[in-house]
Amino acid sequence: MSSNQVEAVLANLETTQDEARARLFDLLRIPSISAQPAHAEDCAQAARWLAHEFAAIGFTTEIRETAGHPIVLGHYAGPEGADAQARPHVLFYGHYDVQPADPLDLWESPPFEPQLVDHAEGPRIVARGAVDDKGQVVAFLCACRAWYLSTGALPVRITLLLEGEEEIGSPNLDGFLAANRSELAADVALISDTGMWDRTTPAITSQLRGMVYVQIDLFGPSRDLHSGMYGGSALNPINALTRILGDLHDDQGRVRIPGFYDGVAELPAALAAQWNALGFDERAMLRAVGLSAPSGEVGRSALERLWARPTADLNGIWGGYTGAGSKTVIPSEAHAKLSCRLVPGQDPAAVLAGLRQFVTERTPPGARVVIQDFNASPGVAVPVEGPFIAAAAAALTEEYGKPPVMMGCGGSIPVVGSLKSLLGLDTILMGFGLEDDQVHSPNEKFDWACFEGGARSHARLLGKLGGFG
Amino acid sequence: MSSNQVEAVLANLETTQDEARARLFDLLRIPSISAQPAHAEDCAQAARWLAHEFAAIGFTTEIRETAGHPIVLGHYAGPEGADAQARPHVLFYGHYDVQPADPLDLWESPPFEPQLVDHAEGPRIVARGAVDDKGQVVAFLCACRAWYLSTGALPVRITLLLEGEEEIGSPNLDGFLAANRSELAADVALISDTGMWDRTTPAITSQLRGMVYVQIDLFGPSRDLHSGMYGGSALNPINALTRILGDLHDDQGRVRIPGFYDGVAELPAALAAQWNALGFDERAMLRAVGLSAPSGEVGRSALERLWARPTADLNGIWGGYTGAGSKTVIPSEAHAKLSCRLVPGQDPAAVLAGLRQFVTERTPPGARVVIQDFNASPGVAVPVEGPFIAAAAAALTEEYGKPPVMMGCGGSIPVVGSLKSLLGLDTILMGFGLEDDQVHSPNEKFDWACFEGGARSHARLLGKLGGFG
Repeated sequence: MSSNQVEAVLANLETTQDEARARLFDLLRIPSISAQPAHAEDCAQAARWLAHEFAAIGFTTEIRETAGHPIVLGHYAGPEGADAQARPHVLFYGHYDVQPADPLDLWESPPFEPQLVDHAEGPRIVARGAVDDKGQVVAFLCACRAWYLSTGALPVRITLLLEGEEEIGSPNLDGFLAANRSELAADVALISDTGMWDRTTPAITSQLRGMVYVQIDLFGPSRDLHSGMYGGSALNPINALTRILGDLHDDQGRVRIPGFYDGVAELPAALAAQWNALGFDERAMLRAVGLSAPSGEVGRSALERLWARPTADLNGIWGGYTGAGSKTVIPSEAHAKLSCRLVPGQDPAAVLAGLRQFVTERTPPGARVVIQDFNASPGVAVPVEGPFIAAAAAALTEEYGKPPVMMGCGGSIPVVGSLKSLLGLDTILMGFGLEDDQVHSPNEKFDWACFEGGARSHARLLGKLGGFG
Repeated sequence: MSSNQVEAVLANLETTQDEARARLFDLLRIPSISAQPAHAEDCAQAARWLAHEFAAIGFTTEIRETAGHPIVLGHYAGPEGADAQARPHVLFYGHYDVQPADPLDLWESPPFEPQLVDHAEGPRIVARGAVDDKGQVVAFLCACRAWYLSTGALPVRITLLLEGEEEIGSPNLDGFLAANRSELAADVALISDTGMWDRTTPAITSQLRGMVYVQIDLFGPSRDLHSGMYGGSALNPINALTRILGDLHDDQGRVRIPGFYDGVAELPAALAAQWNALGFDERAMLRAVGLSAPSGEVGRSALERLWARPTADLNGIWGGYTGAGSKTVIPSEAHAKLSCRLVPGQDPAAVLAGLRQFVTERTPPGARVVIQDFNASPGVAVPVEGPFIAAAAAALTEEYGKPPVMMGCGGSIPVVGSLKSLLGLDTILMGFGLEDDQVHSPNEKFDWACFEGGARSHARLLGKLGGFG
């Protein structure tokens, strides 16, 4: 075999662009919002769509039920022959579920009616899930499809693991991994749910933050009270909740949860130097989202704060009267959603325990507090050396004409930690998103050039792993 | 003339109970909800009903239009003769509008189909407006009517001022008072829109809290952001808002707004002793609403905190994701509604300025804050001595067999301040509500005994002011 086969695969991708886009649009039209029970059947439909698509190119696929949304499991046996069977076996992980689309009125087109929109920087796909993660999964699908159609086979063994609960913290994934260890055996994992350094520079992500996510419910009086008749005597749950949460950071921007920084290492000097050399312009990033000044820990570089330091952010808060004008009520309850991004070295269980202690210590007499725990995953560091990362780096270098940046990522992909701890797999994090993709926001988009570059890079990587070129 | 005339008036009230109740039911059937434009004609109808009823007993009445709902203005010239004209001229203020009846499904009978309901503590009228304020206005009407029917005249000059916008903050009342000063000239104002101490103990309210009510809108990024991608760099408006509001009280429960306590006097020792002697059971009041411990300023008695100390209560808060489960968003904005109850001596404008300073000083760089001001009225102290209060106290003592409690009120009746500042009038606050009347809530009620006692007390007070007995 020769690298001509890779050229044929790339040529096939070139001529099937319209078909690829139609395929992606089909998936984007399914409102598979995992957080909302009303969309359970949509999640199941997205799973069936993916199982069908991969089955069409030689995968054996199954829909595996969980206590929540199903998992699509697929196996591609790989080419025959001892030589071929000696090639690395890749486990590809992706997710077909998406975030809720609210606030709907800020979308320029309906979130589940995908559009190809012209833009000064090139055309883009606009829809919920365009980049996170449906577009990136379909880019991989198209790479496999091009191999299958132009050469009759995929060059390596592949196990496919597509879940439908990533956006709600993957409550059933670890159990599934633990229960199906032998069926999921592979040599390396590949995930495409991260970003490029910029529009023309590829990246491999080597460091991910973890997360602890809780909801704090604070209860006071048994009914809403008139603030004139009771104000000065009755506990006000919103007063109490803001008092607790207002104490979350000290004047240096450090998080006050007890034990929060236990295990957090200082950034190695070499990595710090590498990141500093990237010339990241924090003010430009913030300007693009309407902010004039950075926030966060005093005395830390921007990339350090974004990639290598833990945070605590309130993601939602509500209580009392929220309509127009005034209503003089002391409400009976108040609520907040709080998430901490964790870095490697922090123990999620310890952070959660510290958070419970932090809230409980500050809850006034007479109030009752409930802390619901939605999510707890550690930060993860991925090896930056070895044959698999080298193959990915080579594929990206060929595609983009320059080597990838080895970057950190402020977000969390908890499955990376689970794949390591439960299946012993290191992960290649090769993604094609851009900073302005509006992930989790209205008008989420995926540049068409990124989709295409992603599909081509996946095709090249499969070739590299299969020993082609 | 003799106190036999008062006896005749009371006897007339006794024999006309059914007629009085029918009259009250007629007014309660009119859904005069001032907040809802669909009920504008109902408000006008309630105004016409009152004008007609008072015209039937010798008042000259007019419907005076405003930019909102009309004001009923009435004049009773009083008995003839120099002696009679020397008697005090009373301005009676009341309001014919009511709060919205929502939530409708919690009413045991339709809110605008008044019922006489038997109860262990005696029969009660159940309807929206039963006690606030239609029932109390009709009690005064019946007192006037009984004087008119049994003696042929009312004993004093009376100006009637009945508005239809009390429940929406009286936006047109101050303008009306200022524009009609000479027509509204009187010696003392009388309002019946407050409560008794308990079922058998009358009260005169001598102190009312005022209010400053604002909405705080805090704006950060121009769109919602992914907390993984931006957390540690982008300003989080909920973090910022809770940090500002969490600072609102110190560890002693005192409000930290600059200058907040300027002008707040310590409670006079005599009044403190009187209130302490009432034996108010704060824990029982709180237990009834599910609270186990009092809140508020350390080292102050319960009635002092409720009646004579200013407060700051958050009435509503919202921002970010408030649905089920988790969403890792840094929202673009966060909001809160905050009201301060003021006591006499505090300047609402100064409190508002202090509040703006408090928020602005704590707003981090890059955030934008807007403070909307909905309401500002001062706390009011009514003189507890002098001939008018003495007359009211004597009338109540005769009716109930014990002297009235001179009590404070944690709520606000802004018109009391306006009557003083614009017309120079002190107000007698003689009301007949009970703590369990469900004011502004479903199943609002007015005990029939309170209605009757109110009508009789008003009849006695008119007699006292007219020099009878």
